[in-house]
Amino acid sequence: MAIKIGLVGTGTVGCGFINILQKHHDDFVRHYGLDLEIVRVCSHSDTRAKDLGLGDRFTPDFHDIINDPEIDIVVELIGGTTDARDLIVGALSAGKHVVTANKALMASDGKEIMDLADQMHRNIAFEASVGGGIPIIEPMKHMLISNEIEQVKGIVNGTTNYMLTRMDQNDLTYEQALHEAQDEGFAEADPTADVDGLDAAAKIAILSSIAFNSRVTMGQVYAEGIRRISPIDLATARDMGYCVKLLAIGNRTPKGIDVRVHPTMLPLEHPLASVNGVDNAIYVVGDYVGQTMFFGEGAGSGPAASSVMGDVMETARLVKNNVQPLVGCTCTDSLPVVPMEDLLMRYYIRFVVMDTPGVLAAMAEVFAKHKVSVRSVIQRGHEASGSVDMVYVTHTAREKDVRDVLTDIQNLDDVLAPKCPPTVIRVDQ
Amino acid sequence: MAIKIGLVGTGTVGCGFINILQKHHDDFVRHYGLDLEIVRVCSHSDTRAKDLGLGDRFTPDFHDIINDPEIDIVVELIGGTTDARDLIVGALSAGKHVVTANKALMASDGKEIMDLADQMHRNIAFEASVGGGIPIIEPMKHMLISNEIEQVKGIVNGTTNYMLTRMDQNDLTYEQALHEAQDEGFAEADPTADVDGLDAAAKIAILSSIAFNSRVTMGQVYAEGIRRISPIDLATARDMGYCVKLLAIGNRTPKGIDVRVHPTMLPLEHPLASVNGVDNAIYVVGDYVGQTMFFGEGAGSGPAASSVMGDVMETARLVKNNVQPLVGCTCTDSLPVVPMEDLLMRYYIRFVVMDTPGVLAAMAEVFAKHKVSVRSVIQRGHEASGSVDMVYVTHTAREKDVRDVLTDIQNLDDVLAPKCPPTVIRVDQ
Repeated sequence: MAIKIGLVGTGTVGCGFINILQKHHDDFVRHYGLDLEIVRVCSHSDTRAKDLGLGDRFTPDFHDIINDPEIDIVVELIGGTTDARDLIVGALSAGKHVVTANKALMASDGKEIMDLADQMHRNIAFEASVGGGIPIIEPMKHMLISNEIEQVKGIVNGTTNYMLTRMDQNDLTYEQALHEAQDEGFAEADPTADVDGLDAAAKIAILSSIAFNSRVTMGQVYAEGIRRISPIDLATARDMGYCVKLLAIGNRTPKGIDVRVHPTMLPLEHPLASVNGVDNAIYVVGDYVGQTMFFGEGAGSGPAASSVMGDVMETARLVKNNVQPLVGCTCTDSLPVVPMEDLLMRYYIRFVVMDTPGVLAAMAEVFAKHKVSVRSVIQRGHEASGSVDMVYVTHTAREKDVRDVLTDIQNLDDVLAPKCPPTVIRVDQ
Repeated sequence: MAIKIGLVGTGTVGCGFINILQKHHDDFVRHYGLDLEIVRVCSHSDTRAKDLGLGDRFTPDFHDIINDPEIDIVVELIGGTTDARDLIVGALSAGKHVVTANKALMASDGKEIMDLADQMHRNIAFEASVGGGIPIIEPMKHMLISNEIEQVKGIVNGTTNYMLTRMDQNDLTYEQALHEAQDEGFAEADPTADVDGLDAAAKIAILSSIAFNSRVTMGQVYAEGIRRISPIDLATARDMGYCVKLLAIGNRTPKGIDVRVHPTMLPLEHPLASVNGVDNAIYVVGDYVGQTMFFGEGAGSGPAASSVMGDVMETARLVKNNVQPLVGCTCTDSLPVVPMEDLLMRYYIRFVVMDTPGVLAAMAEVFAKHKVSVRSVIQRGHEASGSVDMVYVTHTAREKDVRDVLTDIQNLDDVLAPKCPPTVIRVDQ
């Protein structure tokens, strides 16, 4: 008997999902004994549903899907945290399994949704919410569970990775790279969620929750984007043997979970360093498995739909065998999140200063005052404007002390802030 | 109630397995509600079992494990295809679930074992048989199943990857690299299985069977190792923008499955190209997911034990919930394996020849006779011996024609064979 699906959302991923089933329906029956049928499609408009031959199953109201007793699995692909939340809570409450690609919702309301799913003995699957087509959530919930995960970090935002790659390899400015990404369809008209690291923050909240068996929500993630990065930073980093990536990082530490998103200098030999363009990759370190990495296409219709359909098929195996989900919420610990100010790292800091006598001495004094020890200083020319770039790399220092340094140095004469605010890149390892 | 495990084999992986459980038993109870207990340990000697505090559970006879009605899951870590086969068949027949790391057995007797498991409604899991700690078998059986897999290829033998890396980066000869690998414990005293590609052949048979839903056995895999590779090949390849890796390759083609192991020239920008040393990685291309890669430590106690314990915990979830396995054998198609002779590829071929007039013309004639079109010829000096290396790169040619070229050229005067047999490296893409 067919397993019946209600699909909500006919955007890029929703259309990809319909395409897969239209192409592979018979393969799924033959290989896995899974006969899947999309019995209802909900969207604001019926155009896409009609285009894909599902016009007769269209409804503009997702309650029709929640209330359809025939539907086994609801697929939520509308995004956002309002309607999507009502839909998912409604569907689970009505005894349906749910598959979603919604990172924002899972990063904010994950606990409530997973608790509801556990209570209703229904599956909630969200592989597509992180890393597009890359299997990462399920591997962490299954194959890697014999490990205590020490670190999960990744390049989980294709837009910014594309921009940084273009800036690095083709010497584009931030603005040029952003416009190009928008022209190519890799960036939204309003790029805030990507370039300010918010998209990555939602994803690392989800990954950290699973990795550390302890709930991390979006609001607990320190997020800093790539707006202040310029080609000079990428070139300077490369001279030092590093690349610059917008990393989403979760660490297990003796004091709790350290979870954050920011531009990061990564040694060129690190497995994540060769992940370029719109590709994504997630690097996971466990106490027995050692280092692993999961690489692939982080966005786009096909990859995301591949994950959504994978979740649907896994859920359909439960439905077909009349089995309750074997894995629910695994956030059984309550680890504190370490405040960003308390972290110890090395820092790359670039100031733009007027090339005048005294400015270097004044800056050195500020570093000394806050006990931030400088490992190297590099001066780079800056056009013919009389200003220069001063790049400092520190020894390991406390975030709070570095922030104090930044504040004090920006108040010095001959330091070009706020017009040219300092660029801060944290150094990995 | 505890889920009871019988462990057979206390070598490197077996000890790692015991270690994980001793360290994480309470974590597994807290996070996943899984209370695992090793109730019997079988090995030739009781030394390791005693060292690890399990001396009271030791038996030298694996039949004691098969016949113990209390045991839910049997873990086979002895390797080989004789005792291991009897153990696994016996355990499944006795109604026990089985977890194994045995690539050779799964690549030869996989069908019989999986059919028996299906028939007995018991789980057979073998994640550790390929790629050590890297999750790859389960992702292909679950997260990626909505795709038609077009290609699976990987660096699945750490020994040869270590040797090639050392030869490439440090200009070691094959013999030097092998001795070093043996000294480091990365290669066996008899390195045949590794350096001749047999280990990799077993692994790609397993991966191809899953990827293409069609059984491929070890004997169907063309395997060629790295014995003829020298540093000059690696340097020449690098000049051309390639690295050389021992790749295990499975392709879905219109004519059937193309499955093989051989040294391969891979473009330096390919995701597999930066996988060095003993690391492993498997690259999978699906029609929707696009390209993905799974990277990690391919061998060693911790990584392999991580996979074995992951399989055990997944199986324990079935036992705890009194559920039959939801996924059995998925080899539902019977695709032919394309003969190696029929494949079309580009080839790198290096001959050692005496630097005499006429030899080049004679060689060109052979290529022309067999209609193998040459794209480039490079001559490299070879010590002060009067011989030179002639490196040919062909346009796309048929394997059979290239073999005819090799035979004919080796019969020419002034071509130093069999003392210096030609080196053949197939070019990826």
